[in-house]
Amino acid sequence: MFGQVVDVGRTVTLVQPGDYAVFTVRRGCGTCRPCAMNRSDMCRTGLYAERGIWGLDGYQTEFVVDHEPYAVRVAPELEAVGVLAEPFSVAAKAMSEAVHLQLTRLPDMATSLDWLSGKRCLVAGLGPIGLLAALSLRLRNADVSGLDVVDASTVRPQWLNRIGGHYIDGRQLSPDHPTDHIGAFDVIVEATGMAALEFDLLDALAINGVYVVTGIPAGDRSLNIDGAKIMRRLVLQNQVLLGSVNASRDHFQLAVDDLVQAGTRWPHHVADLITHRHAYADFDAAFQHHGSDEIKVVLEWAA
Amino acid sequence: MFGQVVDVGRTVTLVQPGDYAVFTVRRGCGTCRPCAMNRSDMCRTGLYAERGIWGLDGYQTEFVVDHEPYAVRVAPELEAVGVLAEPFSVAAKAMSEAVHLQLTRLPDMATSLDWLSGKRCLVAGLGPIGLLAALSLRLRNADVSGLDVVDASTVRPQWLNRIGGHYIDGRQLSPDHPTDHIGAFDVIVEATGMAALEFDLLDALAINGVYVVTGIPAGDRSLNIDGAKIMRRLVLQNQVLLGSVNASRDHFQLAVDDLVQAGTRWPHHVADLITHRHAYADFDAAFQHHGSDEIKVVLEWAA
Amino acid sequence: MFGQVVDVGRTVTLVQPGDYAVFTVRRGCGTCRPCAMNRSDMCRTGLYAERGIWGLDGYQTEFVVDHEPYAVRVAPELEAVGVLAEPFSVAAKAMSEAVHLQLTRLPDMATSLDWLSGKRCLVAGLGPIGLLAALSLRLRNADVSGLDVVDASTVRPQWLNRIGGHYIDGRQLSPDHPTDHIGAFDVIVEATGMAALEFDLLDALAINGVYVVTGIPAGDRSLNIDGAKIMRRLVLQNQVLLGSVNASRDHFQLAVDDLVQAGTRWPHHVADLITHRHAYADFDAAFQHHGSDEIKVVLEWAA
Amino acid sequence: MFGQVVDVGRTVTLVQPGDYAVFTVRRGCGTCRPCAMNRSDMCRTGLYAERGIWGLDGYQTEFVVDHEPYAVRVAPELEAVGVLAEPFSVAAKAMSEAVHLQLTRLPDMATSLDWLSGKRCLVAGLGPIGLLAALSLRLRNADVSGLDVVDASTVRPQWLNRIGGHYIDGRQLSPDHPTDHIGAFDVIVEATGMAALEFDLLDALAINGVYVVTGIPAGDRSLNIDGAKIMRRLVLQNQVLLGSVNASRDHFQLAVDDLVQAGTRWPHHVADLITHRHAYADFDAAFQHHGSDEIKVVLEWAA
Repeated sequence: MFGQVVDVGRTVTLVQPGDYAVFTVRRGCGTCRPCAMNRSDMCRTGLYAERGIWGLDGYQTEFVVDHEPYAVRVAPELEAVGVLAEPFSVAAKAMSEAVHLQLTRLPDMATSLDWLSGKRCLVAGLGPIGLLAALSLRLRNADVSGLDVVDASTVRPQWLNRIGGHYIDGRQLSPDHPTDHIGAFDVIVEATGMAALEFDLLDALAINGVYVVTGIPAGDRSLNIDGAKIMRRLVLQNQVLLGSVNASRDHFQLAVDDLVQAGTRWPHHVADLITHRHAYADFDAAFQHHGSDEIKVVLEWAA
Repeated sequence: MFGQVVDVGRTVTLVQPGDYAVFTVRRGCGTCRPCAMNRSDMCRTGLYAERGIWGLDGYQTEFVVDHEPYAVRVAPELEAVGVLAEPFSVAAKAMSEAVHLQLTRLPDMATSLDWLSGKRCLVAGLGPIGLLAALSLRLRNADVSGLDVVDASTVRPQWLNRIGGHYIDGRQLSPDHPTDHIGAFDVIVEATGMAALEFDLLDALAINGVYVVTGIPAGDRSLNIDGAKIMRRLVLQNQVLLGSVNASRDHFQLAVDDLVQAGTRWPHHVADLITHRHAYADFDAAFQHHGSDEIKVVLEWAA
Repeated sequence: MFGQVVDVGRTVTLVQPGDYAVFTVRRGCGTCRPCAMNRSDMCRTGLYAERGIWGLDGYQTEFVVDHEPYAVRVAPELEAVGVLAEPFSVAAKAMSEAVHLQLTRLPDMATSLDWLSGKRCLVAGLGPIGLLAALSLRLRNADVSGLDVVDASTVRPQWLNRIGGHYIDGRQLSPDHPTDHIGAFDVIVEATGMAALEFDLLDALAINGVYVVTGIPAGDRSLNIDGAKIMRRLVLQNQVLLGSVNASRDHFQLAVDDLVQAGTRWPHHVADLITHRHAYADFDAAFQHHGSDEIKVVLEWAA
Repeated sequence: MFGQVVDVGRTVTLVQPGDYAVFTVRRGCGTCRPCAMNRSDMCRTGLYAERGIWGLDGYQTEFVVDHEPYAVRVAPELEAVGVLAEPFSVAAKAMSEAVHLQLTRLPDMATSLDWLSGKRCLVAGLGPIGLLAALSLRLRNADVSGLDVVDASTVRPQWLNRIGGHYIDGRQLSPDHPTDHIGAFDVIVEATGMAALEFDLLDALAINGVYVVTGIPAGDRSLNIDGAKIMRRLVLQNQVLLGSVNASRDHFQLAVDDLVQAGTRWPHHVADLITHRHAYADFDAAFQHHGSDEIKVVLEWAA
């Protein structure tokens, strides 16, 4: 959700009419400690609600109203890309979890100020969340590779290249030895939601590496894996695998801040992530497949 | 390795003749940062050596000599149990990794001083490492369950009970719904090395839970898992799975400190972990299976 | 504030009528991030309010009503000591700040699980906050000394002794060389509010030590200090001095949890901190000085 | 110390002849844990030695030899500025301590990736260490002010301006109300060694701010301060004051990495910090005062 403020309550100080803002998605359970700290992304009871996903109306409407603690102000120069704050917030939480875990457990991190700089990072799945994760990593000068299964000449790999990332066509990897040609990665961010691939990527994780999964696979189909090899390597190489879902208000803020930085470093480039915009009356068109030239499709509700 | 000091070099200050001490197992690669910090347990090159395991002679001999930075002094009152410092160090590293990760990422931890107190913890595999992990958790007032597949009347479950742990007989769990009767756990420590079980235990992990694997499964047999369900839950519940291997000098120190505490809280109880002692000339006997009354078998080299 | 719940709103789940509970003191500014995270103790704008202190009515009344996020449930067995949760929360925040800072910056902490155990700690000022800080430290097996300027035979030093602390009579220290007889401390917790002493205590801080100040000195009288010596030692010994004020809801929870532990380890002892109780109609008596046999004076509002 | 490698031992892998490198200054005590972790900057016994400062010969000679763990390789493009690695390492440790403390204790930091970005930072004392601290802060996009008592047109303020810092002439501040015109700072880095100023700077620290002192004041002259005001604000505003001395090998590495980044962002600019170079035979000249056009004076030992 991204929009322009038309009115605010008497005590609101964060925004005023005319400003732009986004609202977060999840609303806390009201009882657990993380929710009491505005960190409903870590809700312990599972009794949260989510606007447009679970238990609460979504934002597909011209006007929305919500409480100030769920809002993040968006600078006017981000007017064209503010709608990306929500998918970006999911990437921001994943990145932040991965980095802070490593800051804690790697013995040499206490003397580090920019751990991501120069680190080998792999982003799997170059949809909006994956590409925004790559953007976040490139802003911090990581060495970023992006994995997908489309032609290198299409929009997603091209968008990645322009921020200095390297595209890896997964169709050309050896299924048994994927890292033979791509090396091992200090950080892996997954955003495909394909369970088999999610396990395969463990093959590409470096010693002491951290692998954060954001894709939510559907179904319950059985999977054949070399379980002993996966666990043996996880142990012998001190690896971390973690799941990351949703995002707190602060992660939205981190996303918005990164969008500003990205606008300075790669002017006009972020807006290219939005490949299609449709008026809400044409919502049918928005749900049609746009082929390999699609990254993010946006539905416009403004009058 | 545990022994009594017979002589020390001129500059050694840590111990003197007559003291007891243990030596750590791994020796650093000499090039990576963790090894330069005496954290060879996190060696980044894989070029470490290990006494008795990889590239260096072990300790099965009457006299050993090594450098001071690899030694940890052991108080005289631990004479009977000092040999447990090595397996305990593996549990200590696993515990310490798990706790520090959670201290970092759980939003309410910055206001916490004893996170383990009252937490639901599961230890899988009640060999020496598992039971010592349980001991470490009980010293910090965690609510500890221990999982194995032996009769509740045998020595391992009985040892666990006496420190206030609850025994779970894995043979009585429903394979499909293991947590139906045991609930979900905030912390899981695995010490079985059985790959299939290592994946199954993910079913017992609570929201925001941390699961640390220390068992190293052998072989490469294919495993059938419900991969989508595992990954979906990992993501939706913000779970962490991590591998932990070996231990640094500081983890040996942590183990030795815990042995002292345990001696105060449960006098004489730790020594019962050592169920069999054999003179080195009878090494054959040490390698025979001692049945369900065995926990730790020790080979004595002292004259 | 400590009381018994007589009624709750429809959506309240934390407590029900008959339960005991405390309310926190500070109410957030509504705009800064810490306040948005229920950490108004770290409010960045200074625009918070405090019940009974600043901008809001206090709790000196028979019935109070407030919102659930500001409440902490207190177990029935703490009925006699629940009123101590508030001063204890101030000590809990100070301890938690000090410990977490050291966990971050001391290189060997990543391998530690109970940093306070065995550490030399000094508590200055044995009023309720100081004695509760000492209690918190002793629960974690720290080596605790308490400094005050009363006779060792009076109630405060005696209370400290019974939990295993050592009393230091500040009147017997050399003003110029206070640490000559007491050694240097890894942790200092100050709760006197006397500015001159607050600076003097820096003399007693060990290498790499942390010193947390909670006492708020009044006035603006000029002070003569050996500034060069203080700063030189701060730098050369990597010391930390920090201020800590107020407490978040989570610190109240930490305090309540510690009260339960203390009840197990030193039964009935905590209640002795409350040396005088007065009915509210006798409030005059509560404000009279009770001499050296006073620790905490409580005003009773219950019918 | 900065030089070119002429020969290496048989097992050295870090550098080879022809490479450039620096050696660290301090050598550990051999007994405490930080020293065992190559963190002698945090030595707990005080029994360390320092090349050229305490107990060991310095580097004022044509050829030096030392052990690999004390060396950091320097890229050839840093040949002109490698000698700055040592003063920069002191700034790097100070910055890293300050940032990591805040990462731990500020409630919203767990969701942050670049805390320094946009933060108001003050560097006091624009000698080499101060200016390199400013460089490190500017590389991380902090809002940096630098305080000194020289004309704005001289080399030090000018150097600061060119990396985007703001110069504050301390002679124009009101001694009683220094922050009236400069505002409050989230981070203060001190590098003057003047005790009175070190205390005065506390006036400029923001709520929740961190202030790291690196300057070591000489003498024992008494100082008149408003002690109650300083401590009252420290407490009420949750401030941290910490000392930072020396630097570990990892901080040298951080410094060298930053020099590379600085070379990309402000080409040729760092070399301007070295305002004077003298052949070692002219060492007299090096010790003469060069006036306000001096920043760093270097003695050349190369043949």
